[in-house]
Amino acid sequence: MLRFIFVLLLAATPLRAEVALPSWNDTPARTAILDFVDATTDPKAATFVEPKDRIAVFDNDGTLWAEQPVYFQFLFALDRARALAAADPEWAKTPALKAAATGDVKALMAGGEAALIEVVGATHSGMTVEEFTREAGEWVRTAKHPTKDRPYIDMTYLPMVELLDYLRLNGFSTYIVSGGGVDFMRGFTDEAYGVPPPNVVGSLGKATYQIVDGKPQVIKDPAIAFIDDKEGKPIGIMRSIGQRPIFAAGNSDGDYQMLDWTTSADGPRFGMIVHHTDAKREWAYDRDSMVGRLDKALTDAPAKGWLVVDMAKDWSTVFAK
Amino acid sequence: MLRFIFVLLLAATPLRAEVALPSWNDTPARTAILDFVDATTDPKAATFVEPKDRIAVFDNDGTLWAEQPVYFQFLFALDRARALAAADPEWAKTPALKAAATGDVKALMAGGEAALIEVVGATHSGMTVEEFTREAGEWVRTAKHPTKDRPYIDMTYLPMVELLDYLRLNGFSTYIVSGGGVDFMRGFTDEAYGVPPPNVVGSLGKATYQIVDGKPQVIKDPAIAFIDDKEGKPIGIMRSIGQRPIFAAGNSDGDYQMLDWTTSADGPRFGMIVHHTDAKREWAYDRDSMVGRLDKALTDAPAKGWLVVDMAKDWSTVFAK
Repeated sequence: MLRFIFVLLLAATPLRAEVALPSWNDTPARTAILDFVDATTDPKAATFVEPKDRIAVFDNDGTLWAEQPVYFQFLFALDRARALAAADPEWAKTPALKAAATGDVKALMAGGEAALIEVVGATHSGMTVEEFTREAGEWVRTAKHPTKDRPYIDMTYLPMVELLDYLRLNGFSTYIVSGGGVDFMRGFTDEAYGVPPPNVVGSLGKATYQIVDGKPQVIKDPAIAFIDDKEGKPIGIMRSIGQRPIFAAGNSDGDYQMLDWTTSADGPRFGMIVHHTDAKREWAYDRDSMVGRLDKALTDAPAKGWLVVDMAKDWSTVFAK
Repeated sequence: MLRFIFVLLLAATPLRAEVALPSWNDTPARTAILDFVDATTDPKAATFVEPKDRIAVFDNDGTLWAEQPVYFQFLFALDRARALAAADPEWAKTPALKAAATGDVKALMAGGEAALIEVVGATHSGMTVEEFTREAGEWVRTAKHPTKDRPYIDMTYLPMVELLDYLRLNGFSTYIVSGGGVDFMRGFTDEAYGVPPPNVVGSLGKATYQIVDGKPQVIKDPAIAFIDDKEGKPIGIMRSIGQRPIFAAGNSDGDYQMLDWTTSADGPRFGMIVHHTDAKREWAYDRDSMVGRLDKALTDAPAKGWLVVDMAKDWSTVFAK
């Protein structure tokens, strides 16, 4: 009897169909992912990849969590500007900082990129990296999204969290490679995605080594040292990881170079784009969006062989909570 | 009988004394290391550290492998200069490059830092990062040291390789944090130390994303982007690892800030200096050395509580082969 059940189990539809990626609908997208993992992890397959080379990289904003109406790190900067201005009336001494502190996004946008850089610099500096990361993590866990009225940490995508887990279960190393600030992301990526600080690659602020109250500290400076976006993503990967990934996931043209560089090398490769098609449960946007614009990558995806995930059709659940 | 043997085993000197760190003599240095690992891994101890926070960082040159008569990466640059000049007589078109190509170290040194930067830039660029790392690894495995007449990869320190293994066995994550070039080190650190490319932090050359023969590549440029030495080490650690280590090992004043920053934070901390005291088996040098100068860190070690490892007394074997 026991043997009979065992044979039955072996003969049944592969177990993967039952348990893997439960928040993905049974569509070709899910099958393509499962097939790629099977192909690269079967030691007898010609497409087998050694565990040390199973590097998978994921963009963050719009790929692992939401990014509307604007990147969450920007909303964090506004909240910090308000708090800093409340604690010290002298703090908001320029038009850009004043606009940020009062939440006047229109005035802030009128200042262009220079104003944004000024606000990010002023709100992301003057403390140790460790303190900043702790504050960022607390904000992500407690502050609430303006329209979805839930903590930002609950606005991660459950299907993508499952995908990260599934890849790790299959011997992949998972990394985040984002235009977002690395010190910001490290405040929550372990809790939200199971991706610990060393596996987070992002944009870098300058920092200096200083003795504060007799103790050495690494202090965040207002200037930017490296932008991990577009061409910067493959460069950031080679700086921090030192190996070309075999799996890359993104959602915007900012991920084009990372996808192209990952998938154009020899051997089995996987490129994936999360397409925001779900106005009901999340948001629907692509070619004309200010945030997370997806245009060239969407056009080129079929020729490049990149999987375009249709959020509305391919995901049974969107948010982690 | 079996039970009796079992009880005997439990009652005996801890197993660690028999098997851990076999190339270390039974001196206080070895005991201090074993005690720290015990203290941080015993779940019942007040000094217990969660595995995710067991970050250990190691300098490379002079700490994990030799660095005399000069940093091995510099000898690699000279070998590459000779090969590039042989392939293209136009290549050595400046005094610095000519000196490098002919191995005229005296003339090269006369050019000062600018000459060195020119030579490193010219020999470490114009190819993909992946090709460069492959070439570096091949050189480390095959080229021979000028006086010790053995491949550089055999000039790693066996006691330090054992220490890396022992820490990993006890749930530590081990990283290299070196002034050496990250793309150079990644060619051999996995084979030599069991430290894979993502766990190597080092100085960074600039790089650009380029389409070469229709395929995207990350190409090394001659300019330097980041020097991972002195104050740069804690900054490099916060960029790449994002967590303050609890264990740091170095051998020169270039490691001072990393040691100080690591050991001055709360909780159990370990700082270690490899002191080159072994003129017979390796080299003996410290305060007056051009390479790997150890002066202030040696003076401050007792007050800072850093373990100074006496290579001649504490190590029964020096080289891996």
